[in-house]
Amino acid sequence: MRAVFQNELTNLQERLIQLSDLRLDAIRDATVSFNAADIGLADQVISGDTTIDKLAVELDELAIEILTRQSPVARDLRIVVSGLRMSATLERMGDLARHIAQLTRRRYPDHVAPESLRDVFVQMSAETIRAAELLTRLLRTQDVALANTLIEDDRALDDLHRSVFDLVLAPDWSGEAEQIVDVILATRFLERFGDQAVSIARKALFLATGEWAPAHG
Amino acid sequence: MRAVFQNELTNLQERLIQLSDLRLDAIRDATVSFNAADIGLADQVISGDTTIDKLAVELDELAIEILTRQSPVARDLRIVVSGLRMSATLERMGDLARHIAQLTRRRYPDHVAPESLRDVFVQMSAETIRAAELLTRLLRTQDVALANTLIEDDRALDDLHRSVFDLVLAPDWSGEAEQIVDVILATRFLERFGDQAVSIARKALFLATGEWAPAHG
Repeated sequence: MRAVFQNELTNLQERLIQLSDLRLDAIRDATVSFNAADIGLADQVISGDTTIDKLAVELDELAIEILTRQSPVARDLRIVVSGLRMSATLERMGDLARHIAQLTRRRYPDHVAPESLRDVFVQMSAETIRAAELLTRLLRTQDVALANTLIEDDRALDDLHRSVFDLVLAPDWSGEAEQIVDVILATRFLERFGDQAVSIARKALFLATGEWAPAHG
Repeated sequence: MRAVFQNELTNLQERLIQLSDLRLDAIRDATVSFNAADIGLADQVISGDTTIDKLAVELDELAIEILTRQSPVARDLRIVVSGLRMSATLERMGDLARHIAQLTRRRYPDHVAPESLRDVFVQMSAETIRAAELLTRLLRTQDVALANTLIEDDRALDDLHRSVFDLVLAPDWSGEAEQIVDVILATRFLERFGDQAVSIARKALFLATGEWAPAHG
């Protein structure tokens, strides 16, 4: 019975890593498609999001099953509860990657971002991919130092997000209203992606330490 | 022991309703402050958000405690798991109300929305308040018909959201870049608020029916 339980817990953790990997691919492909106006890649992200959604639902079902049949306690309970909460956030991160790809699709064959903003979006993309990678490593290794790094690093993404506003509102901005709309949505999606990564990192800290308080955010 | 358990479950459900009520006040005050450029009310929403955050954390702690000490099964387990998931979403809705209030604060003494968009934002505000009210009633009564109404009604909010884009991108739009930025953020916050309400309504359906599948969104 105990062995079955441990298998189920391991299975849950593996699915969480798998979900995290898929979401890493999604944000990588979404940002590449955004920066290069690559519609093929954008479409791949859009259609791939259903796989992420499905995996998240299956993970939830498994977590509920474990809670029902095994009544886990202490650290095991924390693993299951964290799994439930993280799956919802990973699924949401997949949605944000899809939103980025949908912006790319809507403006194709044009780029979403005008020339003057390309560089800042390339930098933001690198930051979101880095956050997504850190998160996968964190889930794999459960090394809390990675959680702290991720939380610290999110500031760079926030700074870039603010700089998009500055660029769009600068007196020498010459873009169309449509470009402002798209660019503001895009920067908001990427910033939120970073926030969601931070929120999972906080949940990972909870899992490691048993301190629930910082789970929200 | 059984009586203690039932008390704890009731306590959990009451806290969820309390959280939902606070969040209803938050979106009502936030949208009133937004539509009337009322900075006093905006500040109230901004400072009140910490109470919502605190309540959500306490609710989570109670849910974890119940899982640890009572190992609930079947419907009781669904109540606890739903409580955990709903609290995170209610807390997030509070954040969105705060974001609306922060936009109001940033533009004060000006209105965030230019004249031509005031009416659509008043309508969007009414829709979000209605969704928040339906949600509180749903949590109080657990009447699944309310969940379905809420999910149906969200379309009106989505339509209004799209109409903001149409207005901003219309050839006769004469606003500043700054106004576009604020208006796009505001409409996105309100639309997301509606989405979050739908996601809780789906969780309530899960609670009523035991069908987990539509929990995400």
